[in-house]
Amino acid sequence: MTRRVALVAPAGGYVGPALSRVLAARGFDLVLADPAPGLRDDLEAAGATVVVQHRGDGPGDSDDPGSSAGDLGRRMVEAAHEQFGTYHSAFFSSGRIALGRFQRTSIDDLRAAFRDNVEAPFEFVQAVVGPLVERGDGQVLVATSATSGRPTPSASLYAGTRSAATVMLQSLGLEVAATGVQVNVVGTNFMDFPEFLRGNRIETPEDRARVEAMVPMKRLGTMVEFASFCATFLDGTSRFATGQFFPYAGGWAL
Amino acid sequence: MTRRVALVAPAGGYVGPALSRVLAARGFDLVLADPAPGLRDDLEAAGATVVVQHRGDGPGDSDDPGSSAGDLGRRMVEAAHEQFGTYHSAFFSSGRIALGRFQRTSIDDLRAAFRDNVEAPFEFVQAVVGPLVERGDGQVLVATSATSGRPTPSASLYAGTRSAATVMLQSLGLEVAATGVQVNVVGTNFMDFPEFLRGNRIETPEDRARVEAMVPMKRLGTMVEFASFCATFLDGTSRFATGQFFPYAGGWAL
Repeated sequence: MTRRVALVAPAGGYVGPALSRVLAARGFDLVLADPAPGLRDDLEAAGATVVVQHRGDGPGDSDDPGSSAGDLGRRMVEAAHEQFGTYHSAFFSSGRIALGRFQRTSIDDLRAAFRDNVEAPFEFVQAVVGPLVERGDGQVLVATSATSGRPTPSASLYAGTRSAATVMLQSLGLEVAATGVQVNVVGTNFMDFPEFLRGNRIETPEDRARVEAMVPMKRLGTMVEFASFCATFLDGTSRFATGQFFPYAGGWAL
Repeated sequence: MTRRVALVAPAGGYVGPALSRVLAARGFDLVLADPAPGLRDDLEAAGATVVVQHRGDGPGDSDDPGSSAGDLGRRMVEAAHEQFGTYHSAFFSSGRIALGRFQRTSIDDLRAAFRDNVEAPFEFVQAVVGPLVERGDGQVLVATSATSGRPTPSASLYAGTRSAATVMLQSLGLEVAATGVQVNVVGTNFMDFPEFLRGNRIETPEDRARVEAMVPMKRLGTMVEFASFCATFLDGTSRFATGQFFPYAGGWAL
């Protein structure tokens, strides 16, 4: 059996490391952006061939989320073609948790949110989807946020810009639906990872209990279980869903 | 590793046989309702212990979709407890494809649709969810239809009653979210299986092309890929989604 190839960007945080492990276990070779320490060794020990690219190493302006994401995507595509001759799946996540009431935010806050949450996935997906469409085979999954389409007090710019990316990429999914390429979007909230804990000022067990109380499941989600969910949209075994948005947030978003 | 146990009803058509195979491959023993010919042997050859129940064999009135589904569910729960001591997951599908313009349907058509599409999942899920909630661990997945929440000309009674079941079970998902039990709903359209082909009068390649043209992906879905999708909500690897509805229809429903 020929191994399949996936791009995972970034592979250094959020669901990237856990997703890379799931894909390697399912027979994928990997092109990773900025993998977490030790991840590459683990994946190679699991039988995967791994190629690494770093954001900001290319000609793209690394201070600009959009152009650096596009540059990264193009270099990952090149690396996949050079090492493996092709690739089958691509995962991308970006964004920055930004909280604050609407009337206390500025146009600069809005523009920063737009760059992180919309321009970055736009540029990355533009860079990676073309060769898949040309070959008529491939799966793209982008993580935005469970706030997509869900008005969220004290997160208006975040939820708004996340919604922009979600609907933009759902539309792309429909545009290319007949080509054999699937584009889907997932969005989390209440996941147990450093940025979420920091963004919600969770430092003590009491802080954590306060936030968990907001989740119907009364707990935070793990990246291992989210990785298993994501793999369903990337591993090629189930391809009749496209242009869809799937929240993953313990019942908080439906 | 202890094997897990799933109930699959029915296992004789729709996604039942393919889902049973995926779950067996993932280490599940199975309680099946009315399995397809040969399925039991295949699953046992794959290492699964299989128990079979038949709809209509119990005290429930087999002519009534609701009470016979409830009776079936109770007998499957008993069989699981007797054979395995417990169970972890349950899948149920029911319903009948019914097409026709609103003004040409009768109150009897509406009541028949309600019995097949709402009462049957109500009774089955009531029968199986209790022991899971009591133990604080389990996953329930019910297949309704991708028409849930999607107004569909010439399928008003079908889409309407499917929506009732979907929202009823999403609500249950939220009710039990804090208990460790997940309840999710999937819904297909444009799947390649006998009832869909018959319901849409697909007999010739031209008929098929006419229907495929209505799907953004321009093809029908397969039960093998849908089974892979369903298993994500039953196999215990990814549990932070609950009370959700996931359409699976080639981009037709988002």
